[in-house]
Amino acid sequence: MDGALPPASPTGLSAYVAVSQLLGLTLLATTGAWLGRYRGGVAWHSPLQFNVHPLCMVLGMVFLQGDALLVYRVFRHEAKRSTKVLHAVLHGLALVIALVGIVAVFESHRTKGIPDMYSLHSWCGMAAFVLYLLQWLLGCGFFLLPGASSSLRGRYKPQHVFFGIALFALSIAACLLGITEMLLFNIKDSYRHFVPEGVLANTLGVLLLAFGLVVGYVLTRDDWKRPPLAEELALSMDFKTLTEGESPDGGSQ
Amino acid sequence: MDGALPPASPTGLSAYVAVSQLLGLTLLATTGAWLGRYRGGVAWHSPLQFNVHPLCMVLGMVFLQGDALLVYRVFRHEAKRSTKVLHAVLHGLALVIALVGIVAVFESHRTKGIPDMYSLHSWCGMAAFVLYLLQWLLGCGFFLLPGASSSLRGRYKPQHVFFGIALFALSIAACLLGITEMLLFNIKDSYRHFVPEGVLANTLGVLLLAFGLVVGYVLTRDDWKRPPLAEELALSMDFKTLTEGESPDGGSQ
Repeated sequence: MDGALPPASPTGLSAYVAVSQLLGLTLLATTGAWLGRYRGGVAWHSPLQFNVHPLCMVLGMVFLQGDALLVYRVFRHEAKRSTKVLHAVLHGLALVIALVGIVAVFESHRTKGIPDMYSLHSWCGMAAFVLYLLQWLLGCGFFLLPGASSSLRGRYKPQHVFFGIALFALSIAACLLGITEMLLFNIKDSYRHFVPEGVLANTLGVLLLAFGLVVGYVLTRDDWKRPPLAEELALSMDFKTLTEGESPDGGSQ
Repeated sequence: MDGALPPASPTGLSAYVAVSQLLGLTLLATTGAWLGRYRGGVAWHSPLQFNVHPLCMVLGMVFLQGDALLVYRVFRHEAKRSTKVLHAVLHGLALVIALVGIVAVFESHRTKGIPDMYSLHSWCGMAAFVLYLLQWLLGCGFFLLPGASSSLRGRYKPQHVFFGIALFALSIAACLLGITEMLLFNIKDSYRHFVPEGVLANTLGVLLLAFGLVVGYVLTRDDWKRPPLAEELALSMDFKTLTEGESPDGGSQ
């Protein structure tokens, strides 16, 4: 492998990333259209406070989480440290927005006297949020703070990548459950007659799946993974020399 | 890499596979307990026909599909052809069982005068089934029938693997949606009071996710992938020689 790769992206990657962003913006617009057209819109101190929940969860736990996962594919020729910081900042922003969405539904439940955390949607959603927060803290601890050794980072990285994609999938599943709950609570009797609100919300579900599918494809395609830059390879060789006593010219300890 | 690997499995693989099977059997038992204890059991020509649907979908689209995905990790030292046939047979069985489950829900809807295919669950579930059938047909066409060239198989294989895992995830998501629908149709008012049926069905959802997580982990862990056997490496070298005019001793065409 040649470390000094040209700065071009692999064929097709840009097109897939563009499609993911188009899907992401469309699913945000569809969520807005559903809440605005059929659910009275969004407001904090009002009976509409509940509607902040789906908007924040789709924005934070799906769109921003998905985009945070994509940064290593999109900014493949930037310095790793900058990309890592962007990855952490986007995930952090996603967590803050998701937290606002969670506060909204708990406050709305309290106002209306509805118990919390009884449904499969709430179990999946809360598990996704808590594990996502844990994953973010572990990620910062291992990869951003200086404490972890290179070999420890190397051992943790595959777990971080697997759980990152698994949590993204769980977040999308939780959104689909939330859509189904909202429809069955609000339009249970007319849903079966293919009323426009039902079809629109189902379409939002399909868009969420499509976004997840495209992001998942970009992330898991082997030849689209971020190649190490020339200076990273050199650094890694220096580090190996320092820690394992090997010299770059092949001498051993 | 050494082609003549010893027949031992990698450390940890057997334990993860055992956990996956324990989870799989537990989720089947939980589905049976839910339907038997709270939904009157299962029967074909009766008002209980609907209950055939969740049982078949959990058995076919989750348990058997998951086990079919695992065969290349479990039977890692068997001949590739036998493993491939087992992979296809298990997926085929899963499809037949899922088809019975789909017929059950359509017939049950017809008897009760309920429209079909209006919910997000039905959209996701039908998409999962149709794409799974398509994936199976393509898999048989590319990998079991003799027509496809080695290079065509090599190009299709990563897509087959990605869509295989994605369809497994979609199948689990469709099951979670089905659980939520069943609960909101049957115990909408008591669900919020943490009644035993609701907690049991939520637990089934968590078990489905846990099964998916463990199977997904086993499938995607790099060092657990099936290594090529010595005779497969030799065959592949012979094939390369025949098709590309290269001789194994390094001579070119």
